[in-house]
Amino acid sequence: MHYPGSIKKEYKKNANYANRGMDLESELNISNEYYLNNNRALIYKKPTPIGIVSVDYKQAIITKAYFKTPSTLDYNGLYKGKYIEFEAKESLSKTSFPLNNFHEHQIIHIKKAIQHGGIVFIIIRMNGNTYLLKGSDFQNYLEKNKRKSIPYTYIEEKGKIIKDGITPRLDYLSIVDEIYFKEEENGK
Amino acid sequence: MHYPGSIKKEYKKNANYANRGMDLESELNISNEYYLNNNRALIYKKPTPIGIVSVDYKQAIITKAYFKTPSTLDYNGLYKGKYIEFEAKESLSKTSFPLNNFHEHQIIHIKKAIQHGGIVFIIIRMNGNTYLLKGSDFQNYLEKNKRKSIPYTYIEEKGKIIKDGITPRLDYLSIVDEIYFKEEENGK
Repeated sequence: MHYPGSIKKEYKKNANYANRGMDLESELNISNEYYLNNNRALIYKKPTPIGIVSVDYKQAIITKAYFKTPSTLDYNGLYKGKYIEFEAKESLSKTSFPLNNFHEHQIIHIKKAIQHGGIVFIIIRMNGNTYLLKGSDFQNYLEKNKRKSIPYTYIEEKGKIIKDGITPRLDYLSIVDEIYFKEEENGK
Repeated sequence: MHYPGSIKKEYKKNANYANRGMDLESELNISNEYYLNNNRALIYKKPTPIGIVSVDYKQAIITKAYFKTPSTLDYNGLYKGKYIEFEAKESLSKTSFPLNNFHEHQIIHIKKAIQHGGIVFIIIRMNGNTYLLKGSDFQNYLEKNKRKSIPYTYIEEKGKIIKDGITPRLDYLSIVDEIYFKEEENGK
């Protein structure tokens, strides 16, 4: 059974932000909060999709629900007038990033979102680094290789390292600027 | 206690699509499905935000959870390379649209999303019609009037009627084209 990453996070509310061992999702959440408060971007984590089976309406409590499979990526929003969407994953394997991290619908969605002009990417934490891999590079690998994982060498070659910081914790938008907005700013 | 609209919908899975009495949310969901299948746009309803309290991991069932207050609007996605976001509400009152339909965070979010270049609007079903009201018209009314509702006359004046159809059921993107893309297509 695959559990969405956010569930474990619910129990980590009191996590210390200064803690170097913070997980990727928490680091992205505080980075997005920083972007929001500084009016740089509006990017949110989507709620975990669930199916509600029963509700205690008196107490306003859900008493039974199940996890649904997501069709889109975990984060989406608006940056410099553009649609942005991404997924974030930590890989325990040091040699390859397993593709069973993604549902089939999500892979189709990535392709479509690129076609429709969205900025789409994957954030992968692996071997102690945090990489931003363009959706098109992810897509290209999948189409050319019928493998169940992406080798770390490919992620190292194509991905860009997102530097650790304090404010924001993970400044992934500076990589987005570099990849997606540099040409525009130079008048192409 | 305010319940997100989607909860009631969970029990309506077998609703007949031909039924004229279908509610606004279901009509939007099938319209979005149509847009998706015809590769016209990628627009999804966001899952209801919940806080998970306890999970039976053996059965993969959530046994206790509560409803969270949303900070963003219900639907968002990507259309013609642009970020799109909207909320949909049915009003039982015939004379005015109550603003307690919106949380404070959502109202701030609407303002920000417009500032960041998003296409933002409200879909309001009222007096048998379905209106698309531009986010900026919604915003303007709120800033100029310290009232707790928007009079129907304002919605009639500023809103555009979304026609009922079969495929798609509610072709709101044709109104979006008219409002947001007409100028661009004419070369401004």
